[in-house]
Amino acid sequence: MSTERRKTGNARFTIGVDFGGTNVKLALVSFIGDSFKIEGFSSFQTKDYKKDELIEQLVIRIIKLKAESTYKGNRVRGVGIGVPGRVDFNQGLVFDLTNVPGWKNVHLRDELISKVKIPVLIDNDANLMALAESKFGAAKGHKDCLCVTMGTGIGGGIVLDGKIYRGMNFAAGEIGHMTINENGPLCVCGGKGCVERYVGNRYILESAIKRLRNGAKSILKNQLSGTYLNLTLEMLSKAARQKDPFAMLIWQEVGLHMGAVLANVVNLLNPEIIVIGGGVANAGNLILDPIRRIVRDRAFQVSCRNLKIVPSKFKEKAGIIGAASLVLANKEK
Amino acid sequence: MSTERRKTGNARFTIGVDFGGTNVKLALVSFIGDSFKIEGFSSFQTKDYKKDELIEQLVIRIIKLKAESTYKGNRVRGVGIGVPGRVDFNQGLVFDLTNVPGWKNVHLRDELISKVKIPVLIDNDANLMALAESKFGAAKGHKDCLCVTMGTGIGGGIVLDGKIYRGMNFAAGEIGHMTINENGPLCVCGGKGCVERYVGNRYILESAIKRLRNGAKSILKNQLSGTYLNLTLEMLSKAARQKDPFAMLIWQEVGLHMGAVLANVVNLLNPEIIVIGGGVANAGNLILDPIRRIVRDRAFQVSCRNLKIVPSKFKEKAGIIGAASLVLANKEK
Repeated sequence: MSTERRKTGNARFTIGVDFGGTNVKLALVSFIGDSFKIEGFSSFQTKDYKKDELIEQLVIRIIKLKAESTYKGNRVRGVGIGVPGRVDFNQGLVFDLTNVPGWKNVHLRDELISKVKIPVLIDNDANLMALAESKFGAAKGHKDCLCVTMGTGIGGGIVLDGKIYRGMNFAAGEIGHMTINENGPLCVCGGKGCVERYVGNRYILESAIKRLRNGAKSILKNQLSGTYLNLTLEMLSKAARQKDPFAMLIWQEVGLHMGAVLANVVNLLNPEIIVIGGGVANAGNLILDPIRRIVRDRAFQVSCRNLKIVPSKFKEKAGIIGAASLVLANKEK
Repeated sequence: MSTERRKTGNARFTIGVDFGGTNVKLALVSFIGDSFKIEGFSSFQTKDYKKDELIEQLVIRIIKLKAESTYKGNRVRGVGIGVPGRVDFNQGLVFDLTNVPGWKNVHLRDELISKVKIPVLIDNDANLMALAESKFGAAKGHKDCLCVTMGTGIGGGIVLDGKIYRGMNFAAGEIGHMTINENGPLCVCGGKGCVERYVGNRYILESAIKRLRNGAKSILKNQLSGTYLNLTLEMLSKAARQKDPFAMLIWQEVGLHMGAVLANVVNLLNPEIIVIGGGVANAGNLILDPIRRIVRDRAFQVSCRNLKIVPSKFKEKAGIIGAASLVLANKEK
């Protein structure tokens, strides 16, 4: 008991909130040195609440986690929140959220601080994933790191010299909307040939389904028995692991496009490490190997020297860990 | 006389060296606040000297400028040198130089320091141009700045938070080798569809000559009277200013390609300002206007808000000013 006490005596406690399009997750996290532990957890479905109710839920649950911590004798230093959208970090102002209606120019930080009475910091979720991987995860020990999330969209967070790089309008890191073909297909963003237009979830599936319909041979055909729309990324991964040439080709193409855009980033920023996460990245080496190969083929040789391209360590937990660590990262400034 | 004394009393003197492929230029520069003055100058042709002789020339001329300064009562704080190649800034080690043979892994800083007896710092020339524009030029007052030089090659320097960003292997800023077409023509770097492959000096001229040969109509045809290889960028600029549709189209295409790659950089870094210099940029608004338009068309709207795309202030002097200011910039750390 007293040993336990001593151990957490040096710990710094914070609350991390991963505000996603589907779920909102909250965690009480303790940090000692460069390790951390999740001490309490809570979550709810995003769609169950409208904006004001959702904020109320956040307040209730933050106060509860704070009380839990206080009960155990540990003061909570603050709350970090990651949201799927653009945020004025300095003002704690949420400009808008992807896939969560009703959030436009919300001064979330000030609203929360007045109720939870501890410091609150808000940032974009991709930035916080990059922070988590950089401080405690796959990029630990590296001062410059790029973190890419491959899912419905292709997002990115940049950590330079150990600090999140946000850009003038808090809009940096939009790797998904870098073009790999200036005359390519139109993207939702208004650009052309954005890499997301090739390797976003939906486009991978669309392209595979189209080719199956056009007569491509694959073991997936039997599994789907004609209902191609049921195709999932998991099925494509599984088929590729079973050496299905069609599925392998699809992943190679994804790697080819991602490799091309990451080679651009490598030539521009010469980073130490690129961390790749998100649902699409669950395909693991099916996608990481071609990415590594293409980056090495395309980018400057010297910039590839000692460059690491690795999978995310924390996967879906990166958001909450990054959010919790934001409070401490900010104090270090 | 005494007024003069007081004025330069607060000045900090340094020597800047712009080591180019054609000429080596040296200047004694005085800095007061955020302004500077060139107090002495010297130059020689690069090709006149082999490596060791060239270093000897540098030593002689640096010592001479230092003596000039001391004679006027001003101590020289150090020497900054910009070279056309990759440099380990921390070690003052020149890895190699573009278009200057015989320079491979040269510990230039240590060699010079032992002879000139003042601090010496060495960096890549594009980095120093960015530093010059950022501290005193077109990007003055902005903390994040990207500086692009359009010439034979397309180079770039990045200043973030007022400091040169060099990357893990001192290779950051290779904007010219970001792809705008992943299946585009092969580039000298080994990549494909690099923007330099479209808008480097040579490729602009090649493309124009090819089309003139293929029967394109232009006032340039009379001027060249069949000897198309005599075409220059200056002639293309002049013809475009005279509203020659062919020449205007060539510049618009250059702007289109550069705009596409800069939109990528804007989406990734969300910088405050992009400074464009180099020989090709002498075409001025012929090229800046289409670049601005394409960046606004292609990049995220929010990232274009307050974004400035401006011509270099110092043009061919940026290198020497950046080199001279490096000594002071480094002291500020």
